[in-house]
Amino acid sequence: MRMIIVMGLPGAGKSSVLSAVPKDYKLVNYGDIMFSIAKKKYKIENRDQIRKLDPAKQKAIQAQVGRMLSKMKGKVILDTHCSIATPKGYLPGLPFSLLSKLKVELLVLISAPVDEIIARRQNDPTRARDAQTPQSLEEHDWFNKAFLASYSSFTGAPCIVIFNRQGRLQEAQQRLLSLL
Amino acid sequence: MRMIIVMGLPGAGKSSVLSAVPKDYKLVNYGDIMFSIAKKKYKIENRDQIRKLDPAKQKAIQAQVGRMLSKMKGKVILDTHCSIATPKGYLPGLPFSLLSKLKVELLVLISAPVDEIIARRQNDPTRARDAQTPQSLEEHDWFNKAFLASYSSFTGAPCIVIFNRQGRLQEAQQRLLSLL
Amino acid sequence: MRMIIVMGLPGAGKSSVLSAVPKDYKLVNYGDIMFSIAKKKYKIENRDQIRKLDPAKQKAIQAQVGRMLSKMKGKVILDTHCSIATPKGYLPGLPFSLLSKLKVELLVLISAPVDEIIARRQNDPTRARDAQTPQSLEEHDWFNKAFLASYSSFTGAPCIVIFNRQGRLQEAQQRLLSLL
Repeated sequence: MRMIIVMGLPGAGKSSVLSAVPKDYKLVNYGDIMFSIAKKKYKIENRDQIRKLDPAKQKAIQAQVGRMLSKMKGKVILDTHCSIATPKGYLPGLPFSLLSKLKVELLVLISAPVDEIIARRQNDPTRARDAQTPQSLEEHDWFNKAFLASYSSFTGAPCIVIFNRQGRLQEAQQRLLSLL
Repeated sequence: MRMIIVMGLPGAGKSSVLSAVPKDYKLVNYGDIMFSIAKKKYKIENRDQIRKLDPAKQKAIQAQVGRMLSKMKGKVILDTHCSIATPKGYLPGLPFSLLSKLKVELLVLISAPVDEIIARRQNDPTRARDAQTPQSLEEHDWFNKAFLASYSSFTGAPCIVIFNRQGRLQEAQQRLLSLL
Repeated sequence: MRMIIVMGLPGAGKSSVLSAVPKDYKLVNYGDIMFSIAKKKYKIENRDQIRKLDPAKQKAIQAQVGRMLSKMKGKVILDTHCSIATPKGYLPGLPFSLLSKLKVELLVLISAPVDEIIARRQNDPTRARDAQTPQSLEEHDWFNKAFLASYSSFTGAPCIVIFNRQGRLQEAQQRLLSLL
């Protein structure tokens, strides 16, 4: 297994950049796997309910996601969050307990200028809940990079930030493809 | 046990913010425990002598603090440093060897604008030894946040920065209470 | 064994600062050891060939470097990179798998203002390959400090940044000597 992990703030354009990935890569979304497990295990019907499960159940789900990911074969790209801005602070997307189960080859963070992220979120009604002030977005971006460095230290895998600037999506996609 | 760890630069107002914590939380000061152990074990009479102990003895004390903390029950708030500015650099307050013994639920860093921290230190004679230049304080604050991200990656617990701005203590206290 | 690890961006003046280290310290260069092992094991003739070896062989070499370092006695200064800017991103110089084999006493990062680093690289033909834009150097410097914090959290050793400003080499050297 060769796993590349791609992360990014909501509104940084991660999905658009990932749309350029060739078909021989298995593109896996962490949230999708988590939801499918929660659905079976705890009769959950929508994603928001996961957050409301008690922490012990959440941990059980996460552990199961980790086991599933660790068994995957071939070239895998894991699409996930570097950290999630929750009401209790930044929750790491790749805690060491999860990373210890994976063979990580590369850690990629998709980022963009803060004002562009805000504009994209405003134009996307499904992202309304992610709206934040420029200061809080700057802070989240800062912490994402600090998390990235710690994930890299732990795994030994290199880490890179790809900027996905407005009107220059192709450039960001080319940068990602050059890493595969 | 549910442990919340609250950290902050000297002069950021950590004690004032913590004074709002309800009585059902056990408020534990890392330095106090360390001193009480050092007093018994090595006949130490004041805190400054701890720094002068040889490193092997310091490590022995720290290990004992870790064991004590790991046995605590109930809702605990640990009051400690994110990192300590020593003559040899920033000493992490929560090295992984310590964190591995604790069940951490949340990591909180109390911060404040650098000029306000300097003003508070100047008005507090017991803090004279902590006086620093704005640049060195900025650096210390930067490293505290980077340490925070690594503590969070290691434990899987979310991390948050609470700003304790001059004249807005209540706001900072409310923010902390909302996390408990 | 007492190991002090000294790191720095190419062009920050690490070698000049290290030239002041007293003779009773064993000065060990990570890249030199790596190359000597690669030469014996895989008939490699120059350093650039190491990068072209397949990852499994690179890991085997790194593991052997770690074993050699872990057996050293006395006062050792390890001269290495905090992270290396590769085409695939920042590769950590001290992944936890390596650090776990060492008894680290202190982590030192030699840094310098970005414009001075660029000027030094331009004046040094052997450094031509390291030429970068100010933005990419700022980013590399940022990540080095974040890596430093995670190395410090993992080992429990304090970390420090020494600025080696143009025309003030002696000051930087004195700072390093004060830490030994």
